[in-house]
Amino acid sequence: LMSEARKMSDTVEQYKFETLNVTRPREFVVQVEMNRPKKLNAMNRAFWRECRECFQRLSTDKDCRVVVLSAAGKVFTAGLDLTDMSEIAIISNPELDASRKAFMVRNTIRDYQETFTVIEKCSKPVIAAIHSACVGGGIDMTSACDIRYCTGDAWFQIKEVDVGLAADVGTLQRFPKIVGNDSLVRELCFTARKFYSDEAKQMGFVSRIFQDKEAMMGGALDVASLIASKSPVAVQGSKISLVYSRDHAVQEGLDHVGLWNQSMLQSEDVMKSVMASMEKKQPTFSKL
Amino acid sequence: LMSEARKMSDTVEQYKFETLNVTRPREFVVQVEMNRPKKLNAMNRAFWRECRECFQRLSTDKDCRVVVLSAAGKVFTAGLDLTDMSEIAIISNPELDASRKAFMVRNTIRDYQETFTVIEKCSKPVIAAIHSACVGGGIDMTSACDIRYCTGDAWFQIKEVDVGLAADVGTLQRFPKIVGNDSLVRELCFTARKFYSDEAKQMGFVSRIFQDKEAMMGGALDVASLIASKSPVAVQGSKISLVYSRDHAVQEGLDHVGLWNQSMLQSEDVMKSVMASMEKKQPTFSKL
Amino acid sequence: LMSEARKMSDTVEQYKFETLNVTRPREFVVQVEMNRPKKLNAMNRAFWRECRECFQRLSTDKDCRVVVLSAAGKVFTAGLDLTDMSEIAIISNPELDASRKAFMVRNTIRDYQETFTVIEKCSKPVIAAIHSACVGGGIDMTSACDIRYCTGDAWFQIKEVDVGLAADVGTLQRFPKIVGNDSLVRELCFTARKFYSDEAKQMGFVSRIFQDKEAMMGGALDVASLIASKSPVAVQGSKISLVYSRDHAVQEGLDHVGLWNQSMLQSEDVMKSVMASMEKKQPTFSKL
Amino acid sequence: LMSEARKMSDTVEQYKFETLNVTRPREFVVQVEMNRPKKLNAMNRAFWRECRECFQRLSTDKDCRVVVLSAAGKVFTAGLDLTDMSEIAIISNPELDASRKAFMVRNTIRDYQETFTVIEKCSKPVIAAIHSACVGGGIDMTSACDIRYCTGDAWFQIKEVDVGLAADVGTLQRFPKIVGNDSLVRELCFTARKFYSDEAKQMGFVSRIFQDKEAMMGGALDVASLIASKSPVAVQGSKISLVYSRDHAVQEGLDHVGLWNQSMLQSEDVMKSVMASMEKKQPTFSKL
Amino acid sequence: LMSEARKMSDTVEQYKFETLNVTRPREFVVQVEMNRPKKLNAMNRAFWRECRECFQRLSTDKDCRVVVLSAAGKVFTAGLDLTDMSEIAIISNPELDASRKAFMVRNTIRDYQETFTVIEKCSKPVIAAIHSACVGGGIDMTSACDIRYCTGDAWFQIKEVDVGLAADVGTLQRFPKIVGNDSLVRELCFTARKFYSDEAKQMGFVSRIFQDKEAMMGGALDVASLIASKSPVAVQGSKISLVYSRDHAVQEGLDHVGLWNQSMLQSEDVMKSVMASMEKKQPTFSKL
Amino acid sequence: LMSEARKMSDTVEQYKFETLNVTRPREFVVQVEMNRPKKLNAMNRAFWRECRECFQRLSTDKDCRVVVLSAAGKVFTAGLDLTDMSEIAIISNPELDASRKAFMVRNTIRDYQETFTVIEKCSKPVIAAIHSACVGGGIDMTSACDIRYCTGDAWFQIKEVDVGLAADVGTLQRFPKIVGNDSLVRELCFTARKFYSDEAKQMGFVSRIFQDKEAMMGGALDVASLIASKSPVAVQGSKISLVYSRDHAVQEGLDHVGLWNQSMLQSEDVMKSVMASMEKKQPTFSKL
Repeated sequence: LMSEARKMSDTVEQYKFETLNVTRPREFVVQVEMNRPKKLNAMNRAFWRECRECFQRLSTDKDCRVVVLSAAGKVFTAGLDLTDMSEIAIISNPELDASRKAFMVRNTIRDYQETFTVIEKCSKPVIAAIHSACVGGGIDMTSACDIRYCTGDAWFQIKEVDVGLAADVGTLQRFPKIVGNDSLVRELCFTARKFYSDEAKQMGFVSRIFQDKEAMMGGALDVASLIASKSPVAVQGSKISLVYSRDHAVQEGLDHVGLWNQSMLQSEDVMKSVMASMEKKQPTFSKL
Repeated sequence: LMSEARKMSDTVEQYKFETLNVTRPREFVVQVEMNRPKKLNAMNRAFWRECRECFQRLSTDKDCRVVVLSAAGKVFTAGLDLTDMSEIAIISNPELDASRKAFMVRNTIRDYQETFTVIEKCSKPVIAAIHSACVGGGIDMTSACDIRYCTGDAWFQIKEVDVGLAADVGTLQRFPKIVGNDSLVRELCFTARKFYSDEAKQMGFVSRIFQDKEAMMGGALDVASLIASKSPVAVQGSKISLVYSRDHAVQEGLDHVGLWNQSMLQSEDVMKSVMASMEKKQPTFSKL
Repeated sequence: LMSEARKMSDTVEQYKFETLNVTRPREFVVQVEMNRPKKLNAMNRAFWRECRECFQRLSTDKDCRVVVLSAAGKVFTAGLDLTDMSEIAIISNPELDASRKAFMVRNTIRDYQETFTVIEKCSKPVIAAIHSACVGGGIDMTSACDIRYCTGDAWFQIKEVDVGLAADVGTLQRFPKIVGNDSLVRELCFTARKFYSDEAKQMGFVSRIFQDKEAMMGGALDVASLIASKSPVAVQGSKISLVYSRDHAVQEGLDHVGLWNQSMLQSEDVMKSVMASMEKKQPTFSKL
Repeated sequence: LMSEARKMSDTVEQYKFETLNVTRPREFVVQVEMNRPKKLNAMNRAFWRECRECFQRLSTDKDCRVVVLSAAGKVFTAGLDLTDMSEIAIISNPELDASRKAFMVRNTIRDYQETFTVIEKCSKPVIAAIHSACVGGGIDMTSACDIRYCTGDAWFQIKEVDVGLAADVGTLQRFPKIVGNDSLVRELCFTARKFYSDEAKQMGFVSRIFQDKEAMMGGALDVASLIASKSPVAVQGSKISLVYSRDHAVQEGLDHVGLWNQSMLQSEDVMKSVMASMEKKQPTFSKL
Repeated sequence: LMSEARKMSDTVEQYKFETLNVTRPREFVVQVEMNRPKKLNAMNRAFWRECRECFQRLSTDKDCRVVVLSAAGKVFTAGLDLTDMSEIAIISNPELDASRKAFMVRNTIRDYQETFTVIEKCSKPVIAAIHSACVGGGIDMTSACDIRYCTGDAWFQIKEVDVGLAADVGTLQRFPKIVGNDSLVRELCFTARKFYSDEAKQMGFVSRIFQDKEAMMGGALDVASLIASKSPVAVQGSKISLVYSRDHAVQEGLDHVGLWNQSMLQSEDVMKSVMASMEKKQPTFSKL
Repeated sequence: LMSEARKMSDTVEQYKFETLNVTRPREFVVQVEMNRPKKLNAMNRAFWRECRECFQRLSTDKDCRVVVLSAAGKVFTAGLDLTDMSEIAIISNPELDASRKAFMVRNTIRDYQETFTVIEKCSKPVIAAIHSACVGGGIDMTSACDIRYCTGDAWFQIKEVDVGLAADVGTLQRFPKIVGNDSLVRELCFTARKFYSDEAKQMGFVSRIFQDKEAMMGGALDVASLIASKSPVAVQGSKISLVYSRDHAVQEGLDHVGLWNQSMLQSEDVMKSVMASMEKKQPTFSKL
């Protein structure tokens, strides 16, 4: 038991970051906390790199079955850190012509996009727990999560047009596929106006509002634990199939899950689940 | 008239099934009732086969313009019948290696998928009328229907993770394209928690809640009759175009309906409709 | 100033139409008003041609950054003008066989589709301001707009099945991708029943309801002015990316916006925006 | 041995057809011979039905690993049997309007298309051995096969324009994806001119020419036997991946084969192959 | 007869262009000749506009069933006219920032692309008859044609890299889908080296080589006449299906041609063809 | 000059690998040589990792404009090193159930696929120079290159079925899109028979055959130098567009290259090229 506990903390060792605080509050549940509270968790170069590394590791970490993403300090995130952006340096370089700048800008955008795409590709469900301000890049980031909860005082802003650019790290792609009110989506993208927790819930961007951050964290961890108690083969297969199916026709999604399950139905988890269900017991699943 | 009535009942003759009860409660309206009430309408091998046959026939039955899908007994359906599943036999066979099992499992999944895909491909609108429990395969099945109504006491459960597997007969593909709250969809898929009629309506899975089953059946049949009174060329073309367009880019959907209407606008139904509209009469349409 | 004003009215000169009234109520905001009030703004051959021309010009008009689409008279639109349709003449021509009719019908449908597709392709946001009846073609048209507002007395009807045909100018393609309640969408398409402002808002078809037309026009123009004050490079890039991403997988949308921004991040608007934001001033952007 | 032989002939019992002659000339090799020589193997209603059934059964027949498709009599096939076509009856029916005819015609075309698509979907490789005339539907049919051989006296004709219609059972879809000379493909489709074995080989439609039918049948059976000696898991997986990849982007094809091999690499055939290769022996594989 | 002849020449009246010479050398065959021989048929602004207009009209010209595209003077075409390009003016404009230039450049490219896409969308087959040099834009243009013939002295050059740009009006999209040697395609695109008639034929870019221009024009017109004698419903449907199928999966291509033929099989041309075939006569088809 | 030379050799410093030998034989040309001659350049774990790293670096190395890929020793490559494969260890692990093995196998396959996909994604053209045996993984690897040359004594073998598996690192996806003879492709995949340089050239897999390795290396380096002398903006844009267009419909490819060129036409290389062409000089281009 002791050695198991040590191993658990050891594992967290591999998640030492400047901008992120990574802990294991529950069995098989990892909490990733954005941790530059004095800078309002603004996204600087270190963040873009570390967030990508963090979720890449979580994706194959056998001790992680669910991730809760939250933020330290007064706000969730102020979005892009305008004082620490790679693009500005490239664009201002007088020695480069427009096409050479374009090649470099494109590489930078791809790196940033990849940071949030790894959240989507991470086969473990990611629950975003949002409090207070969630601005600009914060929308891009949480749109790549699976489930979004927020506090009553949370507010959101698709800020990019105010910086003179079309959002390019995910909001324009994922946000409209998450909610069911395209008229509102476009109003929010074109005006950069704030919207609040109730409007966010009504349009389907968040699925639960909690009274305060403490209640939210409790609620998020409870759902995380519930998910972590299920077969990881079943949960991760479900996420993979949901992401694939969002981007494909129904028949292609069916073919894909059929192909997936031709091996996954051979899992011991199916038998364990069926047995447990008959015996009215809680099954325990091997690591994955 | 007499012979017409006889013919109507004759036609129903072709719909004799063990697990389904098929009737014609209204002109051009067929009701398909799941009919294993003692087994909570659990989906056994006979059901997978019969349901497929039933909707294949309905698709070309000229006396059918709309289908109402309901269930006999206390609940709509308990989902998969775990005591009568082909996959279990395959997986437990010690003589087969993993790849040979995979080939067989894939064929079985395809057959099951096909059962609900024929509902979607059936060119006549299908209205699901759901009461009490609608669990597991019940979500897959009703997600392949066009319109979903339920009673106030209805509850739903995406049950598959509790059996150790990712849902593989349609829920993960169709359900998220039906509703506008992806955060909620994923929570429901990963936790297998129950949700109730009001939450189902709010997220757009069902579009009407009725007080009880009797009221619901009356309401569903009235809507069915209203649809059945319209030009079948118009209604079936609309369903075909809606299904195609869900899975394609807008421009491809427009090209498809343009190609469709290059023959369908030559229908006598257009003239009949225009005339009737001028004369303020109700038009009558030939069978299709 | 004088010459600027003259130039503004000069520009409007190019928008002289029989069926549309085009004005510039605010800086960079163009209002397109359907203007056959005695005919309930029914869509006749002149309308199909003029609407297409109008939005094609607006798409490259440097003095236009946002469009408000509204209607004169008692209702928004009664839809197709059945007394002035090209298809009827083709279908009734006894000299043509079914295939030759089909070739001609297809060309006509394509022209009509193109009329509303130019609204979608116009890179400037289009806000539809809908009062009273919005029927048939009105749904197709406003579904191609970006944002939809309506008055409390507004009502809607997907009317095509009542004319014996599947809607073929956009409703079946765009409407279901806008709202998050597919069960309701199909009920409305198959029954042609009316639905009202509150149901329209709840399902996400419109995003705001105003007390009356005057309040709505004020609200729509205010939002239009707000959008017009933002960087046109940012706003138009956002619309182009939203439209592209609706029709593509998330990764393809990300690649597209990355390619787009490899040139657009080199805009002077980015620098202006960042500077203005630091100086707490309102930036002014060059024409695009 | 005796019982094995009996079983082999027993199995052929299930392939009794009017228009096809099915035999097993080699171990694991099935020969399907079109067998209406007096009618030049013209494709009549019985053929469309039987050919579909035959390949559906072969697809899951564990004693079949490769199929050789050939024809009895003087020619391979004269194509469609114009004296026995369903479409003619539908089109000539004066009681149906154009839209109702269209519904029926579409169903007929789909059935015909399905007949050749089952050849493509059959997971066992199909080798077409073509002699003398291969006209119209013969091109559609052999284009759905995997490998095409012919005799020196073979000639081909994409005949459909001469019957007043665009080929609708596969030639226009599959033929251009098989060969590498689109200019020639279109000339052949628009002119319906004959082309001969050498031109067919040069453009890549056939991959070998044999002196006469006897030599060709020997050659085809030898290649079939060679394929039949390989791991059926490997061969069938290769066909499934080739067909999928033809219709998808490279990355999607890679994802698909990765998903496939996550179960198929667990096959005992891999170990057997590796061992046999080390021991310089010929491995023997279990049925699939 | 007289009036028919007059009408024929009347029709040609609508094809008066500066850069193109349009004639009707055979019944239902239109010849479009690039006609700036002193400028080596280089593509200037007038050409881009006129070529688009010409093929748009041909697409609905009932007297045209096939087009032969050729060139006057010593060479087929020298490609882009670098002295008359819109892009240069835009790029050199010092008042525009990189993003505003990008908006304008994109519109220009789209217009140029459209010029050759109308050749592909024109439902009548287009036969390119190429002599001597066919450089740069000439490859883009002829790649959008259906059939390519050339003289023995013809040579080709994918010239764009020598002007510092990636070809953007079709070569990189269409050329590799026409021929079956991707290694060679890329060598030609990256090196801009010349290739000659024999290499062009071997790789499948042209399908016939003629001794000289006169022989080629005779051969091209003979094939054109042969195509023009076939049912225009069949020929145009075949082209539309071939173009659609090149860009879609096989199953989508099959669905498309099935949808197309549900009206086109109702053509009188089918009956005429069948009758003519039985009576061994040559059928005559109505205009389309 | 001195420092430039030093920098050049410095740069090669970053390409120190166990299994690859990287040199710069010509200006802007990098040669990557497989360098395990004693093991017949069989692909072991080190190779899969190093090859990926090598091409990732080359992709952004400003001193590299073209890559020549060759092999040291007697043969090009014997393919997979069966004695050093990750999959074997996973599959043989008795502690894992079929689904957990599947998760691990899938990750391994993805890593291997990525190794060759980086060659395709590397924006610089890659020329494969193949001598003697090119087996199994060698086909997968060279299929991801742009141009393929070989010696007269070269032979090829799609070996995977002989190891009991469907090729899963690219052959089944890329090979059939490169050549124009699908009948031959399938024969080669199903039989694993050898094919020789002449057959490889005839089907379009290689585009040139050289007498011996020395002649081939000279020829490959000459073509590489020729490409390296062109505008890197033009060449890399062409590769990116060719790869994109292979996987998309023509219209999507056109939109993509239009978007690309909206920034790339603003390159100084266009002006330099036009000027140089007028002055009959050879232009020199800045690094990219």
